[in-house]
Parts: sequence; structure tokens; C-alpha cells
Amino acid sequence: MIPDQNRAIFEAGIKLGALYHQWVGTPISRKSAAGVESAIEQAVILQPYVEEITVRLDRTLMTENIFGYSELSGLMFNVEIITRVGFTYCRARLAPQDRYPLMQIVECYAITEISRH
Amino acid sequence: MIPDQNRAIFEAGIKLGALYHQWVGTPISRKSAAGVESAIEQAVILQPYVEEITVRLDRTLMTENIFGYSELSGLMFNVEIITRVGFTYCRARLAPQDRYPLMQIVECYAITEISRH
Amino acid sequence: MIPDQNRAIFEAGIKLGALYHQWVGTPISRKSAAGVESAIEQAVILQPYVEEITVRLDRTLMTENIFGYSELSGLMFNVEIITRVGFTYCRARLAPQDRYPLMQIVECYAITEISRH
Amino acid sequence: MIPDQNRAIFEAGIKLGALYHQWVGTPISRKSAAGVESAIEQAVILQPYVEEITVRLDRTLMTENIFGYSELSGLMFNVEIITRVGFTYCRARLAPQDRYPLMQIVECYAITEISRH
Repeated sequence: MIPDQNRAIFEAGIKLGALYHQWVGTPISRKSAAGVESAIEQAVILQPYVEEITVRLDRTLMTENIFGYSELSGLMFNVEIITRVGFTYCRARLAPQDRYPLMQIVECYAITEISRH
Repeated sequence: MIPDQNRAIFEAGIKLGALYHQWVGTPISRKSAAGVESAIEQAVILQPYVEEITVRLDRTLMTENIFGYSELSGLMFNVEIITRVGFTYCRARLAPQDRYPLMQIVECYAITEISRH
Repeated sequence: MIPDQNRAIFEAGIKLGALYHQWVGTPISRKSAAGVESAIEQAVILQPYVEEITVRLDRTLMTENIFGYSELSGLMFNVEIITRVGFTYCRARLAPQDRYPLMQIVECYAITEISRH
Repeated sequence: MIPDQNRAIFEAGIKLGALYHQWVGTPISRKSAAGVESAIEQAVILQPYVEEITVRLDRTLMTENIFGYSELSGLMFNVEIITRVGFTYCRARLAPQDRYPLMQIVECYAITEISRH
């Protein structure tokens, strides 16, 4: 039997790994970035155990190629996700560190089940 | 020297092949479908030689898995694209045929350059 | 400070989520399947914290479309991965369950650091 | 009715656009590059109208990140593809130009149908 906290952590990893490889390579520009952020958020929130997801894409890295657009790259991602299994939460992040798109657990916590009687 | 019509056709093929493989696998639901359609359109229109792009995703195929969502699959795509190189246009389509997501050229045409004097 | 076991679990989730969305949609056939399995394994093993990875793709689901090939879909995946952080290991799996490509933690364990004197 | 040459050109575009977005983002290293090249070739050759495909990935761009691997990016691709529809061939290329991963038609040609009597 896998404890809830372990599963919440596992699910956070799945979602970050998945969104990264689903969306890297998408043509993007500063003008279209907000729409892509919203589409990623809407896709991730559909998946099981996701409580919250915030996606911000770094516009300063969206330098125009010779045709005037850019491509979504790993270092553009600033993502924070909260997963929940039972009463346990995991908050994790994808953000650039040392020029690497690093995924990290930020914190795990449990809320107390409210007594029902 | 490659004629404009050939390049317009080539570009239409590139864009359809690209969007298919960029987006297949995205978690999707009937509720989020409109946002994904719009995000695909906005990503494609950024690319060179694209005049128009319309993306419709077949909601009837979005059957819910055990977690209540679906995944964007090839047969869901109904896409029409118009590319332009010089004064020549190519209209092409991605739509299911015989249970295969078929990409086809619909028509090519040129407009006459308007005399400037 | 995140314990090693949590990080091993998190990394296992990342890798499974990533490979799924990187490779879904790839044209595939029974004949080419072994090459794709090997390419996925070689790509995953490059990533940090991965100790072992085994990818088997279900050939029985590779039914030919009208052009004689198939497309890698989520239910074809049978993947087992072992990640390691410090002396702690996580073994996780991606395999179909109830017609859903389910990712699950199989077990976590630690090996004892061998005394050096 | 679309002439064979137009369809050969269209199919070349589709295949280049598709492989680009299918494979961009794959973890890669100089050691694993040959396996990825071969996997891409095997996936593309399955598809309709493809006669030949050669994929070379530029190892000099595979600089190691802090974890010792790299990620397949658009500028690494050197691809040549030959498509055929009827007796007409199209040769096209994906290669970097001005730091952009440019797709271009190289040439189209027809072979004469051999008289059968």
C-alpha cells in the first residue's frame, strides 16, 4: 500500500514531465503566450489529482527567428502545481536553474480530516 | 528555382504534419476543446506563409476515460489551412477518411497582381 | 529538505510522464517496434536519477491503418523504471489498467550504506 | 484532380513537419544519437509515399547540460527525404540556415513509365 503523500509526489512528477514534453517545440510569440499558458493549464487541470496549476512562460526568452516567431523551449517554463491524494498535498515547481529546466518538490503537507460527529 | 505554387503546397504539408504531431496526446475534454482549438490556430498562424487556419476538434470522439477526460487523437482533427507564397494560394485539409486522419490538398489558385499604374 | 525517497518517487513520475508525451503519436509497426523501444530506453537512461528502464510496446495493439502502419498510443506502453536518489530506490510502472495507461509506484526501498572500515 | 507532383511535394512537407515536432525535445547525447537517427528513419519510412529518408543529427550542438545530456533541438536536424506519387518524385530537405531549421524542396522529377509491350 503506497501512502497518500508518495502518490501525491508521484503525480506531481508525472504532470510536470508530461506537460514539458507535450508542449516543447510549440510555435509561440509574446502575443500568443497568454493563450498557450491558458491552454496548458486547462489541459493539466483535467488530469487526476491536480488541485492547482499555474503556468507562466518567460517572454524575455521569446526572441524572434528570421520569420518573426519563437519556439517554446524548456527554459521558458515557470510552472507551479499542487496535487492532492486523500488529505495530503504536494506542491512542486518547474523553473530554470543553472540554465536547466529543473523540476523540484517545494513542500508536502496534510490537512486534518474534520471529525464528523 | 521552385515555383510559388510548389512552395505553397509544401508549406501547407509542413504545417499540417507539424500541428498533428505537436498536439496529439494532449489531455482534452469537451469543455476545454475550444481553448485547445484556439491555441493551435494561434500557434500555426505565427508560422511563415500561413494565411488562414481553422481547427475544429470532434467532440463526439472525446469519450471520457476512468478519470473523466480524453486525449487528443488524430481522428478528432478537422483542420483547414490556406498558405500563400507570392500570389499563389494552397488550400489543404486534415480530416478523417476511412478511419485515417487524411491530409489532402483541396485546391491551388493564383490571384492576378493588380496593375499599379 | 526533501527526503531521498520523495525525490526518487518524484523523478520516477517525471520520467514516465515525459516519455509518454514525447513518444505518443510516433508512426510504428510490429517490425519497427523493437527500434522504438530501444530508442526510448536510451533517451530515458540519459536523464538524472534513472537506474534502469525497460520499455515493451504491445504489438497486438499495432493494427494496421489503410496505409499499413500504426501509431504509438498510450495503451501500448509497458514500462518499468527504477530511479535512485542517494541510497533510496523507487520502482514504478506504466501499464494499461481498465483501458487507461496507468502510472503507479510499485515499491520503494533503501539499501544500507556499507560501512567502509 | 491534384497532379502527382503536387501530391509528392505535399507529402514531403507533411513528413518533415511531422518528424520535427514528434522528436524535438527528446533527451539525447552523442552516444545515443545514432539510435535516435535510426528510430526516426524507421518511423518515417513507414508512412505513405516515402521512398527514402536520411536523418543526421548534428553532434556538435549536443552540449551537455548540468546532468550530462542534451535535448534534440530543431537546429540539430539534417534530413533529406524523397517522396513518390505515381512516377513523380520530390526531394526535400530540413537543415539549418541563418540559425533557422529550414525546410526546402530540393527538386522534383518524373521517371518515364516503361512501355510494356
